[in-house]
Amino acid sequence: MMTFGSLTEAYSQNVSGKWINELGSMLVIDSIRADHTIQGRYLSSSGVDGKIFPLFGFINKIESGNIGISFTVHWGEYGSITSWTGYLSSNDADPYIKTMWHLVRPQEENEWERIITNSSTFRPKVP
Amino acid sequence: MMTFGSLTEAYSQNVSGKWINELGSMLVIDSIRADHTIQGRYLSSSGVDGKIFPLFGFINKIESGNIGISFTVHWGEYGSITSWTGYLSSNDADPYIKTMWHLVRPQEENEWERIITNSSTFRPKVP
Amino acid sequence: MMTFGSLTEAYSQNVSGKWINELGSMLVIDSIRADHTIQGRYLSSSGVDGKIFPLFGFINKIESGNIGISFTVHWGEYGSITSWTGYLSSNDADPYIKTMWHLVRPQEENEWERIITNSSTFRPKVP
Amino acid sequence: MMTFGSLTEAYSQNVSGKWINELGSMLVIDSIRADHTIQGRYLSSSGVDGKIFPLFGFINKIESGNIGISFTVHWGEYGSITSWTGYLSSNDADPYIKTMWHLVRPQEENEWERIITNSSTFRPKVP
Repeated sequence: MMTFGSLTEAYSQNVSGKWINELGSMLVIDSIRADHTIQGRYLSSSGVDGKIFPLFGFINKIESGNIGISFTVHWGEYGSITSWTGYLSSNDADPYIKTMWHLVRPQEENEWERIITNSSTFRPKVP
Repeated sequence: MMTFGSLTEAYSQNVSGKWINELGSMLVIDSIRADHTIQGRYLSSSGVDGKIFPLFGFINKIESGNIGISFTVHWGEYGSITSWTGYLSSNDADPYIKTMWHLVRPQEENEWERIITNSSTFRPKVP
Repeated sequence: MMTFGSLTEAYSQNVSGKWINELGSMLVIDSIRADHTIQGRYLSSSGVDGKIFPLFGFINKIESGNIGISFTVHWGEYGSITSWTGYLSSNDADPYIKTMWHLVRPQEENEWERIITNSSTFRPKVP
Repeated sequence: MMTFGSLTEAYSQNVSGKWINELGSMLVIDSIRADHTIQGRYLSSSGVDGKIFPLFGFINKIESGNIGISFTVHWGEYGSITSWTGYLSSNDADPYIKTMWHLVRPQEENEWERIITNSSTFRPKVP
């Protein structure tokens, strides 16, 4: 899709793998393609009965900045969708992905109750 | 990807097509697939020199609720990514897609300046 | 509190009065003080049984920009708090206050369900 | 203002005092009044030249839930306003105040660049 620049293997290595957030949910980034798309899986610690969901996302990186990242999970029969948007920290000694997210629950009757927000900080899963 | 239920043609017709937001940006939803993914294009009214960007997203819909929608644009050489998350109004006489969005600008030096937010309401483009 | 500059009467006139949002909720700004604090009332169209709540907020304005505004409502026995943050449009012919808000519901058991977000655009109430 | 219930001294003790967030900014809650308003000070680690700003806010607490909290800082001559909205964790062994915030910069020319968001988690300042 995007071909304005190639991602070095190093960037891919920085982002790929297993990450855990404050509430114990796990983000797995399986692959980053040359078109800057991400494939992976998400295992939420709450609300979806321990099921694993596929995720789809993007990364972006230009010369002078950090890595931006976004990914989305479609919660299937639960009826909702969550989009995370954030960045990879530039500190190699303490890598983390800081994200803000929006979760839409379209089945809520009141419009003002449909969108939930919060942040998640993902750190590498210790094997 | 998801196969928990098939989307009727009606849902697809409700969402497909051209939509305009308050600031004049255009959302084009070209197709909705059986796996609930969305393909389309985005033409921002500001900040990216009039270029058109591909978008990728999801819709979700269960029996008792409205249509949830999420889509993401990777701004290529501009270095940023935006994710929109929202829902389709249930009022057929005045259809709109109400979204909240996060835009990450990873090249900002200060972490606290990297994520911008706002809302966009998209209404059908009058031919 | 703040005394870095005096608000002209004109600014105060721009913001004071009755405003209505898309969902029919009413914002009433009763007074703006020299210390840039706002006193007013909020009448929500949903969720609080038609009761009127006091609000407290701030405005800020420097030479080269528009008026920024923030206000907060404590929903008393409903247990929640909402903070709106936004700006007054610079178009005198079509004045509006565009806000983003966070609503905290601390009684939700799951942390990730406690904060709701959305936007509200307030326009002058036609008498 | 609000008199639906009195805050016990215990709640006040939980929230009062000095708190530090991930980026080194300090939140000081000096007092909580019977009307549920908060007085305090904020010392940002970035962007405002080390100055201390007064803050104003609310807490809310009903029987079955945690403490909700909101506070606002008017950045004076910097032209912006920030509102934090969140809750106090219910874990006494590891108390923290998790907040989401909106910062409005009304002087930005483009409307879509005016509101920044992120989260801050405040933990007790170790003396």
